Formats: sequence, structure tokens, C-alpha cells
Amino acid sequence: MGESISPMNGGSGTYSYARNSTWQKNGAAAMENALKEAVMESLDLQNVLCDSNTFIVADLGCSVGPNTFYAMDTIIEAVQRKCNKSSLEFQVTFIDRIGNDFNTLFASLPEHGRNRNYFAAAVLGSFYGSLFPSSSVHIAYSSSALNWLSKMPEGSNATKIHYNGAPDAVVRAYETQFEEDMEVFFRCRAREIAAGGLMLFNMAAAPSRDVQHHVASMLTFIESILIDMVKEVYIVFALRKM
Amino acid sequence: MGESISPMNGGSGTYSYARNSTWQKNGAAAMENALKEAVMESLDLQNVLCDSNTFIVADLGCSVGPNTFYAMDTIIEAVQRKCNKSSLEFQVTFIDRIGNDFNTLFASLPEHGRNRNYFAAAVLGSFYGSLFPSSSVHIAYSSSALNWLSKMPEGSNATKIHYNGAPDAVVRAYETQFEEDMEVFFRCRAREIAAGGLMLFNMAAAPSRDVQHHVASMLTFIESILIDMVKEVYIVFALRKM
Repeated sequence: MGESISPMNGGSGTYSYARNSTWQKNGAAAMENALKEAVMESLDLQNVLCDSNTFIVADLGCSVGPNTFYAMDTIIEAVQRKCNKSSLEFQVTFIDRIGNDFNTLFASLPEHGRNRNYFAAAVLGSFYGSLFPSSSVHIAYSSSALNWLSKMPEGSNATKIHYNGAPDAVVRAYETQFEEDMEVFFRCRAREIAAGGLMLFNMAAAPSRDVQHHVASMLTFIESILIDMVKEVYIVFALRKM
Repeated sequence: MGESISPMNGGSGTYSYARNSTWQKNGAAAMENALKEAVMESLDLQNVLCDSNTFIVADLGCSVGPNTFYAMDTIIEAVQRKCNKSSLEFQVTFIDRIGNDFNTLFASLPEHGRNRNYFAAAVLGSFYGSLFPSSSVHIAYSSSALNWLSKMPEGSNATKIHYNGAPDAVVRAYETQFEEDMEVFFRCRAREIAAGGLMLFNMAAAPSRDVQHHVASMLTFIESILIDMVKEVYIVFALRKM
């Protein structure tokens, strides 16, 4: 989410995030039951709503869709089932950092009243900072986004693609940055989420410091190909300039 | 605001709205005192806030800035002066129709905490429809936007630029469309604005059916030049194709 890190590709072209996020979609689908369960078991509806008739959900790191819409539908359906109050209205806020293509996000929103039963808004900002007034969010959700650190830690190597087998100092630099970021993230959410509300998130994780052997070999192999390709492009570019 | 009507030009280039909205800025500046006065005299703070600590403002037809930011600052400053409660937080939602350049709007937002003392969100939609949950807005504001009808009325002539001296039937068609639109607009806002809140707007208007004589002559003259230019472009285009 840091300024120096590239966001997802906007638009809806061949290389857009919207058309290249099946892995993330599968992650969100696997989470569907977990979401429903969390809402049914842990959401304190009476406390969180007080006298309000509006339920507010935030998707932190939404990108441009369409995965975010599936998750929002799941959460809203679960809250509706739990609440059983037809007058309850929903407001969903989609959050991402500068550089995200909000025009595409808005253009791909399902039609209100027909395929979307919530009011939609967008917020620009990093989730490693304050995004909302205090106690103004009822459910904060984040899918496949918290793996993005706020910035590259000092001591990291910008030419590397993954850190499997990296020196201990580099691994520690990433761990420290992650811990710092998580502290800021949770401090901000603690202020923003109303008492009785929920924070729901999924993120990729490795079971230990070293990624499992076959994944590691694959990543190292892909890395070497990509680095060769980059070199080749530079050479072609240099030849063209001669 | 209708789908068939062009929105403001996005981006920040030579022909962008951001660099060609001085007239609208002057209109907003003239409104500054009126805004302050309305907040001081007519806003029922206790009633509108109830127990909430967040004050919510909506700009309907915001375009891409920067005029919207001046107006929001004026409104917030006036509410702060009236309320005198340092813990009060502000949330501003910028609304415009599909085709508005929200990426530019977000990119031009003043920095939060430094030059902006409110949380900012954007909503895509026409103000001739529901945009928010009921009673969820404290001040709704609209500047130089309500002159955009929801659609071209039947019987209007798409090749005309203005309707000074138009047949009575055409003038009536526009009047009817305007009346219908205004009814929808106010019905929606009545549902969305909390009791004790405010609706503040400015819009261009003519003192009578016929625009004053010298303005009318000027408009007719400009119209004839523009129509000639369009014809010429068509001719040049046709010649190039030959």
C-alpha cells in the first residue's frame, strides 16, 4: 500500500486486475462460509447499531472488482438473515490507495436496487492510516490485501521478486515492517469500528519462514526467467537506440 | 445528469473542468456568506447530530474539483464555529454521475490532517435518485449543478445550443422536465437529510422566460459561430476523406 508500490492494473483489458484475479476470487469463495459464521456468531447487532437504521461495511483494499462485490453480497446477506428487519439499509465503502482505478470500480458496480442492495461509496487512502470517523464502521473486511506492506523495509533488495532463502537480516527486516504495519492497522480499526462490530480478513501466509520446498523451487525458477526477460528487453531497447 | 448528457472534462489538461471553472468558482465565492449565514441561523445542531460525533456533508454534482473543496471548507468551518466541540469529526461525500473523473477528484484532494480536516468519500450516481440511506446526511450542498436536467425533454432540438426565442412548446417541454426533476430531487433529499439538517444550493437562472436582450443577442451570435465551425470541420473532414 506504500506510495512506491504499484497498485493493481486498472481498466478491464487483458492485463487488468479485474480479468486476472481468479486466485483472489477463489480465496474469497473459500472464505464465504467463514464470513457467514462470523456474522452469525460474533456480530453484536443490538450494540453495534444502537438506534441507527444503517449498517456500514468497509472493504479495505478493494481494488477494482469484481471480487469485492461477491464478498459484500455475502456479508450483507448474513447480516440481513441475522437481523431480520426489512427496513435496515446498507452502506458499503470501498477503500484503496492512490493509483487504484476508481473509475473502473464505479463503472463495474452492479445496478442499485436490481443487483445491488446497498448504497456504495469509495474512499481513497491507505489502510495503514485513519480512513473513517471513530465508531462509524460496523464490519471492516479485507481480502488478499494485508500482504501489501506500507513500504519496502530498509535493507530489502528491490531487484528481488521473492525472499525465499534470503539472508536472515532481510527476513527480519520484512518481519519488523509487517509487525509495525499490523500494529498501525489494528490501532486505526479499533478506533473506527463501533463496539460490537467485526473485523474480517484473509491474507496469504507461509507456514514457516521457508516456503515449502516445491513452491520455493518454482518461485526461484520463475524469478530467473523474469530477470532474464527484463535483461533481454533492456538489450533490445539498447540495440534499437543504436 | 442524464446518461446522454456529457459530464465535465476530467483530468487537469488545458480543456479540463478543473482548469475551466472560474465562472463556477466565482458563483461559489459569492455564496460563501450565504452558506455561513444558513449554517449559523438554520442548522439545528442538537437535533441533527443526536448522539453522533460525526457530521456528514454531501456535495451533489461535485465534478473533479477544486471548487468543491472551497465550499466544503466554508461549510465545515461554519459548523465548527457554531458547534464549538473539538471532538466533532467530519465526513464529506462527493457525488457525481457516471463519466465523472473520480481518479482526478481523488488525486486533487488536499492532504488529510494538513489541508483537509474531514474524511472524504465519493459516490457515483445521479442526484435525481436515492444516493444515501435515510436520515444519514446532515448538510446536502449543490453548486452550479441543478441546471443539468435528468434527460433532454421530448420535443427538444439536439442541434440547438440555447433556447432563447424558442417556440413556446419547446420552452414548456423544458419547464415540465425541470419541474419533474426538481420534484424527484427534493423527494430524495427529504428522505436522506436528517431532521434539523440543511439543503444548500445555487444554480443559474433567468429572470424571465426570455433571457435579457443583450445576453440573448450574444448567445445567438456565439451559436451561429459554433454551428459554422462544426460545419467547417465536417467539410474539412469530408475533403480529407476524398
